Amino acid sequence: MAFDVFGTVVDWHGSITREVDAMKLGVDGDEFALAWRAGYRPAMQRVMSGELGWTVLDDLHRTMLDELLERFRIATLSEAQKRHLNKVWHRLDAWPDAVAGLGRLKARYTICTMSNGNIGLLADMAKHAGLPWDCILSAEVFRKYKPDPDTYLGVARTFDVEPREVMLAAAHHDDLEAARGCGLVTAYIERADEFGARRPKDVSPHPDNALHAQSIADLAPLLGC
Amino acid sequence: MAFDVFGTVVDWHGSITREVDAMKLGVDGDEFALAWRAGYRPAMQRVMSGELGWTVLDDLHRTMLDELLERFRIATLSEAQKRHLNKVWHRLDAWPDAVAGLGRLKARYTICTMSNGNIGLLADMAKHAGLPWDCILSAEVFRKYKPDPDTYLGVARTFDVEPREVMLAAAHHDDLEAARGCGLVTAYIERADEFGARRPKDVSPHPDNALHAQSIADLAPLLGC
Repeated sequence: MAFDVFGTVVDWHGSITREVDAMKLGVDGDEFALAWRAGYRPAMQRVMSGELGWTVLDDLHRTMLDELLERFRIATLSEAQKRHLNKVWHRLDAWPDAVAGLGRLKARYTICTMSNGNIGLLADMAKHAGLPWDCILSAEVFRKYKPDPDTYLGVARTFDVEPREVMLAAAHHDDLEAARGCGLVTAYIERADEFGARRPKDVSPHPDNALHAQSIADLAPLLGC
Repeated sequence: MAFDVFGTVVDWHGSITREVDAMKLGVDGDEFALAWRAGYRPAMQRVMSGELGWTVLDDLHRTMLDELLERFRIATLSEAQKRHLNKVWHRLDAWPDAVAGLGRLKARYTICTMSNGNIGLLADMAKHAGLPWDCILSAEVFRKYKPDPDTYLGVARTFDVEPREVMLAAAHHDDLEAARGCGLVTAYIERADEFGARRPKDVSPHPDNALHAQSIADLAPLLGC
């Protein structure tokens, strides 16, 4: 079982909002979190198009952060403070059900990440949030970002199994659709509050997902755990 | 803290001897295990010299296994049985102290593998033996085999720390020496029985190691755990 991480297992929006608000920078943490995340796809696109060579997410986050600090007119941070803030992505908190749900699934399946986060980011986050991964797989291992097929197929190849023996769980239909295109089985995890409780996300089921669960804790019994 | 795995954390010789003996192939499991392991360095050397392109250890093991089956005149195995036997490296048992020792170290440090085993091999082994890694790092991540500097320095880069902030623990002085050459701190783990109790290995201390421990359980208190 492979898991998307940002939004699916951890609450990036709430974690970043809380940390930015606590820094008293005179900006709205919620807006800052959304703006940072909005830079994610375009930054990865620059790598996938070949405009940028292989660049790990920490470094993409830093480029975005420098732009955001200018845009939000924050000029008071030292280099050490910027480096620390950039690593807020290593300190994201898990959704309340995630640790227990993963623990139940782990008793029966091999559970791994399949995230665009770099290995160190995901390992630090697992240590911070208590996520009991059997293995951390990352775009960094395959040097391709999702939704490149090499990432989904890479999970199957890593464990020497057929794609149909791998389930991807994610809170994003586009990620799941790309995984199905590679032959993986998919499970949708509702995370209506991914962008904050004030902006509920449409979490309608998609008929092509084998499973649809409200949370990871909810997914476990659907798989007999 | 990064750990060498084969011989340091798990008992490859005992595990393979036991499994081969249990297969009743009419060969001596101890001799078979030693012969298989003897092919390890030459096989990796073919990759590191460029004679072979990047090849994961599972595939190198399979090439060696096919040669061994001929040399030991074993002609009775089906393809499925050969594939299963090749994965004995995924099913190695931990040294008796390893799980508890790693658990204690994990409470204070980030503990990862730095092994020439491929990611899937190490993940399966962790699941089999109960090894509580925070992160599985492998030659496969860096596409270089130890003792290439990219592997040791890759651990530091993965966690965005200086090489001197990483400790490598291993039962092999040559591995530790190469790590020190990259600036890592090193801990030697005695595993006198690595090649079987009948062939005790010289486990004399080397003065350049920061620490010398009889086992991983023994290493923990030396690090305040």
